[in-house]
Formats: sequence, C-alpha cells, structure tokens
Amino acid sequence: MLLCDIGNTSYHFLSDDSDYKESVAAFNPSSITQKVYYICVNSSVQTVLDTLNNWINLKSHVDISNYYETMGVDRIFACQAIENGVIVDAGSAITVDVVKDGKFQGGFIYPGVKAMSETYKNISPALDYSFNFNFNFNVLPKNSQDAISYGYLKSLYKEIISHELPIILTGGDAQKFANIFKDATVDEELIFKGMQKIFNSK
Amino acid sequence: MLLCDIGNTSYHFLSDDSDYKESVAAFNPSSITQKVYYICVNSSVQTVLDTLNNWINLKSHVDISNYYETMGVDRIFACQAIENGVIVDAGSAITVDVVKDGKFQGGFIYPGVKAMSETYKNISPALDYSFNFNFNFNVLPKNSQDAISYGYLKSLYKEIISHELPIILTGGDAQKFANIFKDATVDEELIFKGMQKIFNSK
Repeated sequence: MLLCDIGNTSYHFLSDDSDYKESVAAFNPSSITQKVYYICVNSSVQTVLDTLNNWINLKSHVDISNYYETMGVDRIFACQAIENGVIVDAGSAITVDVVKDGKFQGGFIYPGVKAMSETYKNISPALDYSFNFNFNFNVLPKNSQDAISYGYLKSLYKEIISHELPIILTGGDAQKFANIFKDATVDEELIFKGMQKIFNSK
Repeated sequence: MLLCDIGNTSYHFLSDDSDYKESVAAFNPSSITQKVYYICVNSSVQTVLDTLNNWINLKSHVDISNYYETMGVDRIFACQAIENGVIVDAGSAITVDVVKDGKFQGGFIYPGVKAMSETYKNISPALDYSFNFNFNFNVLPKNSQDAISYGYLKSLYKEIISHELPIILTGGDAQKFANIFKDATVDEELIFKGMQKIFNSK
C-alpha cells in the first residue's frame, strides 16, 4: 500500500516499510502505475492528480463537519490520528491543533522557523540572528539573539503548554522544537497514521 | 526646548506644546539652528548629526550599564521613563521591556503588525488576511483569519500579561493593541518623557 502526503514543495510517500520524498517541481505523478492513496494541499498538483485514476484522494472519506472550510487537509488528517493532544506541525508554517476525546477543538497558525527568521532580518539587519532553541526561558533576555528567540519561541511555548494535553511534534522542524517541549512526542508519520486510519475505516 | 527621537523612517519632534514628524528621506537636520536634544537608532542619520554642534545626543547621559550593548537607545529611554511596568512599543518591530523598581529586567522583540502580516502572506496566499484585534481569545479558532490572529496576538498577549505589571503601549500601532490590552495605558510620548527625565537629571 502506497500513501502520499503532498505539500507545497514535496510529495512525501510512505510505502510498507519506508518513507521518501520527491520534489513537486521535478516529480511526474503519472510515472507511478500502482494505486496511491493521497492527500494534497497543492492546488496545481491536485489538478494533475484529478486526471489520474490510480491516485485516490482520501479527503472525501473523512467527515469534515468537525473542521472548517479553509483548514488544510494535512491538519485534518493529523487530527484524525489522535484522541487527545496538541499537534504542533512545524513546517513552513507552524500549525497548532487541539484534539480532545477525538474531537477537533480548534487551532492556530504561527510562522515557521525559516519564515520568522526572514521576518526579523527584514525588519532590521540588527535582528539577523538564528534562533536559540536552548536558552533559559525563565529569564528575560538581555541580548539580541535571545530577545528574538524569546519573542518567537517563549510566547508560542506558553500558549501550547497551557492546554495541558500531550504534545505531538511533526513536520520538518519537529526535532528543533523537541529542544523546547521536553516531554513531547516526535512523530514524523502522524499524517500517515491519520490516512491509514481513514483508509481502514472505509 | 526641542526633543527629537529618530527612527529608521522618521524624525519625531516634540517642542514645548506639540509633536510632529519629518521623514528621514526628505528632512535636512542642518535646517534647524536651535539646540535639539535627540536620540537616534539610525546610523546614517547619526553620521550627519555628529557634524552638527546644535544636535545634542542624550545617549551619553544615560547609565547604560543596566541595559545591553545592542539594545536600541529608544528602548532604553522608554524604560527610563517608568518605575514599574511592561512597555510594549509597537512599531515595525514590537519591543517588550520589563521594568521593576526603576530597573530594567530584560525584554524581547516580536515582529510588528505589518511585518507579520507579510510573513503569513508569503508563507501562503491562503493566509493573506488582516489581523482581527477583536475576536474572543478564549476560544480556539475555527477559521483562517482568527487562526493567524490567534497565532500572532494571543501568544504575545499571554506572555505580556504574565508579568503582572502595568502595561504601557507606545509606538505607531499602540491603538490597535489597546483593543487587546484593555487595561493598558497608551502613551505616545513615553520616549520623550524618558529624554526629559535624563535631561533634567543632568
């Protein structure tokens, strides 16, 4: 069974035993002839997949009445994978979604590491620092690198832990955030678990 | 007496009875012949002012040992103006500085409204919304506009109120943030008050 989670920049595949990525720019989805069960947030890729019979969109199999119209399908499938928790999907954006007793409670969107780093740099060259994921959040900063790190990370941290639920980190920057959320679980395959669950239930 | 707070884009003057702004791009500081007491974060303007005898830099009159090397002089003078409080200076960046018993405790830097709005838009056109400063922070969002507004504003809000000190809003976007910090004081002349205080003490 082949699963695929398609984002803005890559196809992320999971076959029975391993996962791998292909770039959206270079990969031709018609080069695959077996059945692929997928979700996709990329509208131009979606247009191509709509013409391919062996690519089966799992989106139509999930009850989206609990979610909202413009919510990314990747967030929806991540939520489907868990019963209780705060999902922090740290990619180009950081989406934070809260699930209680299997029900989506709502969520919010925060800029990803790369985007936020650019933001500070564009405000002033004096703020062109990488974020420090290892400083002491309990002390108010007295240097520029910690001042932007605190601004970016501490406020997010406080908000996320306030929900008092298990924290699950996923996405390309999950390991960076594991430095901050010491008790969190890192699960790179969370979305695939949601896809598998929806597939099995149908 | 003429005071001037010089930022990256404008000269902000306070004369005895009124304040006004001149753009950095268009204004010629040698057009003023009276004494001007100023602070300046703009290094190219600083180079010009160094050649003008009637422009007197107040920076050298403040004891900066309580602050840190790369801290903007505007933040330092704002802190000098108060004894206890959290100063939220909402401009191109939002600087948040905590002062207790007249002593700087530390502070952090967060992107300003315009910069953060650009950040979300650049991550995805689907996130190109203006921020909603009037939604209910106590409910997790289920729509895209509130999802980015919550990400940007709620986490900052929680962090700022956690210090349990009076909140003073200043800077160009102070009024927007007054919608969120209902008990805050808006003080557009905070930096001038710090400058006046330093001037009087010398």
